[in-house]
This record gives sequence, structure tokens and C-alpha cells, in this order.
Amino acid sequence: MGMTIAEKILAAHSGHESLVPGQLIECATDWVLCHEITTPAALRMLEERGMDSVFNPDQIVAIPDHSVPAMNIKAATMYQKLKSWVHEKGIKHFYDVGRGGIAHVVLENTGLAKPGQTLVSGDSHTCNAGALGMFATGVGSTDLAGAIYAGKVWFKVPETMLIRVTGEFREGVSAKDLALEVIRQIDADGANYMVMEWVGDTIDRLDMEGRFTLTNMAIEAGGKTGIIAVDDTTRAYMAARGVTPDQYTEYTSDPDAHYKVVLDIDVSTLEPTVAFPHIPSNGRVAGADRVKVSHAYVGSCTNGRISDLREVARILKGHTVADGVQMLIVPATQQVWKQAAQEGLMEIFVDAGATVSYPSCGACLGMHTGVLGPGDVCISSTNRNFVGRMGDPTAEIYLASPATVAASAITGFISDPREHNTQAGAAD
Amino acid sequence: MGMTIAEKILAAHSGHESLVPGQLIECATDWVLCHEITTPAALRMLEERGMDSVFNPDQIVAIPDHSVPAMNIKAATMYQKLKSWVHEKGIKHFYDVGRGGIAHVVLENTGLAKPGQTLVSGDSHTCNAGALGMFATGVGSTDLAGAIYAGKVWFKVPETMLIRVTGEFREGVSAKDLALEVIRQIDADGANYMVMEWVGDTIDRLDMEGRFTLTNMAIEAGGKTGIIAVDDTTRAYMAARGVTPDQYTEYTSDPDAHYKVVLDIDVSTLEPTVAFPHIPSNGRVAGADRVKVSHAYVGSCTNGRISDLREVARILKGHTVADGVQMLIVPATQQVWKQAAQEGLMEIFVDAGATVSYPSCGACLGMHTGVLGPGDVCISSTNRNFVGRMGDPTAEIYLASPATVAASAITGFISDPREHNTQAGAAD
Repeated sequence: MGMTIAEKILAAHSGHESLVPGQLIECATDWVLCHEITTPAALRMLEERGMDSVFNPDQIVAIPDHSVPAMNIKAATMYQKLKSWVHEKGIKHFYDVGRGGIAHVVLENTGLAKPGQTLVSGDSHTCNAGALGMFATGVGSTDLAGAIYAGKVWFKVPETMLIRVTGEFREGVSAKDLALEVIRQIDADGANYMVMEWVGDTIDRLDMEGRFTLTNMAIEAGGKTGIIAVDDTTRAYMAARGVTPDQYTEYTSDPDAHYKVVLDIDVSTLEPTVAFPHIPSNGRVAGADRVKVSHAYVGSCTNGRISDLREVARILKGHTVADGVQMLIVPATQQVWKQAAQEGLMEIFVDAGATVSYPSCGACLGMHTGVLGPGDVCISSTNRNFVGRMGDPTAEIYLASPATVAASAITGFISDPREHNTQAGAAD
Repeated sequence: MGMTIAEKILAAHSGHESLVPGQLIECATDWVLCHEITTPAALRMLEERGMDSVFNPDQIVAIPDHSVPAMNIKAATMYQKLKSWVHEKGIKHFYDVGRGGIAHVVLENTGLAKPGQTLVSGDSHTCNAGALGMFATGVGSTDLAGAIYAGKVWFKVPETMLIRVTGEFREGVSAKDLALEVIRQIDADGANYMVMEWVGDTIDRLDMEGRFTLTNMAIEAGGKTGIIAVDDTTRAYMAARGVTPDQYTEYTSDPDAHYKVVLDIDVSTLEPTVAFPHIPSNGRVAGADRVKVSHAYVGSCTNGRISDLREVARILKGHTVADGVQMLIVPATQQVWKQAAQEGLMEIFVDAGATVSYPSCGACLGMHTGVLGPGDVCISSTNRNFVGRMGDPTAEIYLASPATVAASAITGFISDPREHNTQAGAAD
């Protein structure tokens, strides 16, 4: 029987000719991504067992991103721990504060992580890198410790779900809406421990930034990871980072590969979608319900890229954030931050009354810089709207695309970005 | 006997023809400045006493700045408290998150606070506004409550110290160095409960941004406030904010005014100065001691203005922050932030490997966004280097000008900005 991309990558990294879902394998990790929140716990486990070494300092990427610049003394201590370990072990790829940003988005841009490789990290959105045609997944601190020490992790080979996407996005609709619609259809546990493989003409036309948004959200459907096969778009993306096809392996799913689930979706009728509290599968059409917001958040590993900021700037330009709405825009990396500054987006944001933060995971997980208080209502471009995720348990989080967040910030109510565009056009 | 500027302002606001130091007066407040940290405590006192009203909603300026965007749920709650009070009482001048920044610097730019007026706030650096020729001082939450309710506060009329400054600053030396040198000479309690009145040809030539740095630091010598008489520089500054001389009162100290202390200082030999831990009076010449730094911080109500950022950009341009040094640049207000973006300073900062934060008090008082961990060493443009001020009690804070901070960030050691300039010139 044929194999899927994911199965082929896992076979190649576990010394198997072929393998089947459910099989237990010991998988070599090409990359271990370490941030300052989950890595210290893994290091402590290793130290306690006298196993305080790393399998290969050149295959570890260390990027503090959750609580830096330190939000409190404890965070400062965790950052120090990561940093001193990096120096002690000679970790080659260290993107310090001021040089990096949100780890997943920094990594996708480095050219380090390549098609056909494996990546683990102590962070659930590690699946983000699957858009590069690699097997990338989040693991717990114990598995992270094992990966750091031995360069290997145990996996049960996951089943794969095939998502075939066709049609053109309508104006104001983007990859985020597609991700939310798929999760709505299959439910938040609909892809439990499955690889979500995205194919179809819509995916073929999608740029890398949109593809990362799709694979990033795999975990929100319970997926082990998301994956997209390499094509010319991927190759051009890698080439722009100095990586040529001879430096990586392209895998494609066999025509007779086994898929546990096949989902067909036509995006040509897809509306801007908002996931209502308190679960990402609770999608509804944006603007259909009148929901007043107190906060509007653009950022995160899901939607803090330059294309996201351009879209937000396009909608905000010439408008101001509604009175009583606190809008926060968080470029995902220093690189994105600088690009936004160079393109003049920053002035548009500040003129609109938005606050621009340094790159950080910050409020996405209720850590700092925009934590929600009791009864706050946030329209957010992030990935998860669980109770208490962004702060107080009585706060409500509505997930949407950057365009929908921007339109809602202006009106003060969750709004369809297309309606806003019309109004803006009329006013111009 | 003649009176000083401060005595004249206090007399005019307490219904006295004349008054003398030590006299107790009930003083009318033209402005009450409210931020989200100390105001909620004052409001609670008023509510508990059934005195939940404000003397005049048009004379209160509300600006959240310490812990916003909220650093945690408690901060979000305090911000909500300020905001709901603003709406409930119809407070006219509210600079919400995204519209304001560090309260003192926002206020100085509004044109609201004017020469000859009085201002109180529950914040020790309220003295900042004294550069406008007004009497501005920090008060505790109880006095703040009284001011909010009655528009009045009790003062013991302070003595005044006259600081006569002459000479030209040498290159690389600025108002911050002067402030640190004066505090070094008189000690951190040298101006206890005194008004620090700055005069002399050096002050005459100083721009408003430098003057605010001087009056801002009064509290670091124990001063009740700092003050500088109105001149053409002040008038031009007010005019640029739409305020004409008929809208304010200019006071000058009488030739026979009583000064408790007179200090003469010639800045022509002043060196770039660094206040060593753990007190602002512990000034030494920058670069004379080899001190390795882990953090470099530019910002705060003392030195987060556009002229400060320009100076930092001039020094950073074409250089990078030393490995292992975390540099944080915090424009004081959204206005400064935007100006820096428009002038292209932001790209210089990011290219140098610095992180740019949204406007905030943040790490200056160890609240968030750059809190120091155990053993960290920070060269900082802020105003206070007490034990634990910026985070862990074992961290060390060295106070300096923005130029010295920038030069030190590049070398990784506390450095004389003039030496760095030479090196930069040689390399160019």
C-alpha cells in the first residue's frame, strides 16, 4: 500500500522502508526548537539524571519568545536558564531577544527547517512548519528532554486526514477563515492524532504565509500536525532563504496512500468566519451576530506575518479604532516588525490609535501585554479561544482573520471586513 | 521679602498675598493627573466614604501607563476601574491605551498643563511638568483622593534651592548628566522637601526636552518639585500646542527671594556621568570603571523623548548591540513612537538588534517588559536605581544618559559615548 508524505518522512527518520498508522517508531529529529517556557523543565529533568548533554548543538534552535523582554523576575530567570544553556552547550542557532521573535515564525524564515525533515518542540503550534513539507509537531517536556539528549523521539505513526480544497477565496476571506471553517466542520477533536494534509487548487495558489496559517491551526482540531507537499511556491520560498532543492527531500503522497478521512471543501462560497467562545470549532459568519468588543488583537504564530499586517493596514488606513476598544498589533518577528516600519504600516497603525508591541507570544496565551480582564471581549487573530486563554476566565475570545479583526476594531463590533471595505470606499 | 516662583504660584492658588516656607496652605489644583496604579486606591477611599464625585471632570487628566496593555489580570482590572470611572464621571481628558503613553510625557505635550498652574498626581515624577514653570508634585493616594474630590490639597510651603548653571555642555554630555551630577553633589536627600529652581545661561539655552529631564529628576534628590521660569523657549513650546501667553501666567522669582541653598555649577567640564548602584547620587565618570552589562534600557519619563531616541539612533547606526546584551528602547508616547517611525529611527534600532516596545513605564519600575533577573546588570536612561527597582534585588542598575546607554549597549561595557563616537567615526 502507498504512503502519505508524513508516513514517508517518518519512515526515512526511523530506518523503516515502510510503515503504517499505529506503528510505534523511534524517530530521529533533524531539529529541536527550544523556547524559554518549556525548555527549562526539560533541562532540569536531564540535569537530575546526570544526562546534561545535547545530541548535536547545531541541530537545536533556541528562541525565547513567550515572556521576553521578561515580564517578571521568574520569566527573567527562565530566560537566563535558556541563555546560559545555549552558551554552555555551544548551541549554534540562538535568536536572542531583539534578534528573533515568535519562535515558529522566526524558524520558518531561517532556511534551517527544510522539506522532508522532522522538527519537535515543547510547543503545541510546532505544527506550523508543516507547510514546508516537513513533519513538525509539539511534544511534552519529557519528550523534549529526550530529543535534546538523544536527537530522537517515540511516535505512534498517525493516521492522515486529506483536506481537498478547491475554489477562489472571495474578497475579505483568507486562509484563517478556511482553517476555522474546517475545524467547524470536523470539530475541535475531528483530527485527533491525525496529520492534516492539505491539497487542491486553492492550496496550490496559496502563498507560504497563508499555508503556515493552515498548518499552524492543525492542533486546534486535535491534529498531530498539518502538512503541505512541496511545490514551486515552497521551492521559491526556500530559494529566497538560500536553500536549493539539493539540500532537501521532497516527498509526495502516493496515489494509493491510505487516508482515514477525506474532506472536500469549496472556498468559493466561504464567508469571513469567526470562532465564538470558547472553542475554535464554534465558527459563525462574521457580522451575523452583533457582538461588542473591548479588545482587538492582531498577532501570534498564526497571523502575525507581514501579509497579515499589510491587510490590517489596508483596512485601518484613514480610520480610527472605535472609542473604548484597545487594539494591539504584534508583528511576529523583528524581521516582520522592520518590514512593517519600512513599508510605512507603523504610522497607519498609530494614527488609527492602535498599540504596536515588540514580537511576543504575550497576550495570545494571557501571559502579558494585553491580558484580558473580567468581562472583556476580544476579537483576535490568534488560534485558541478556550476559557481563560487570554486572561480572566469571564473574558470572551472570538477568533478571526486579521481583516475581520481590523474591521471590528474600527466599528467596535464584530464585523464583516467586506462591509467595512465598502464603507471605507464610499468615504474615500 | 520677595518670593520665588513656586511661592508665588502657591500663594495665588491658596488665596494668600504672600507666604513663607513652612506655612501650611490649602492649595487649589488646576490639574489632577490619574493613572491606573494609584488612582483605583484613591477612588476606593472616596467610595467607602460616600464621596464618590469629582471636583471638575474637565480638570482631571486620565492616562493609563504603568501596566498597560495589561500585564496580568489584576492590571486589567485596575485599567478597567480607571476607564469605567472616566466614563461614569465624564472625565474629559482621557488618553487611552493607543492614544497616550507615559502620563508625564503625554501631559507635557498636550498644552493642558500651563505655566503658573498647579498639578498633582499619585506619582513621584509629577515634578516633571515643573519645566513648564508650574508647580507640579506627586502626592500619596489619600491626598490624591482629596484632590479628585475637592480640587484641593494641603501643602507645607517648601523651601527653595537655587541651582545656577553656567557653561556649554561638551559633546556627549546632556541634561541627564547634569541632573546626575547635581544629585551627586547634594546627595539623594540634598533637596529634601525643597523646590529645585534651575537658572543660568545653560538652562536658558536648553530645549524643553532637556528641561523636563532636569525637573523630572527633582524627586531623586528628595525635592518636592523642580521648576524653571518661563522664557521664549517655553512660550514657543506652548505656542506650538496652541496655547498663547494670555492663557497662562508667568511668574518669576524676586531678586530678594529667599533660597535655603544656592548651588553653582559649571557644566563646561562635566563628563558623561553614571550613577552606580544603588542610589542616584552615586555618580561616577562613564567608562572609568569596567562594568559589563547584560541589559541596556532607553525610555521612561526622564529620557524617552524624541531627542533621546535621535541621539540613540545616531550612536547605534551602523553598529549592533553586543552579544549577550538585551537592549530595549521604549518611546515615551505614541506620538514619540510615530515620530521615530517617520524619521526612520525604528529600522536603525531593529538593525542594531534592539527591541522597541510600545510606550510604557514597564521595566523602569520592574513591572513588566524587561524585568531584571538575578545578577543582571542594566545601564538605564531611567531615574531610579534602588535595590530591586527594575526586578530582582541582586540585579544592578546604572543610571545614565541615552547616549551613554547606547554606547554601552554596543560595547557591552559601560562606556563613554564620546569614545564610541570616535570609534564609529574611524570605522565609517
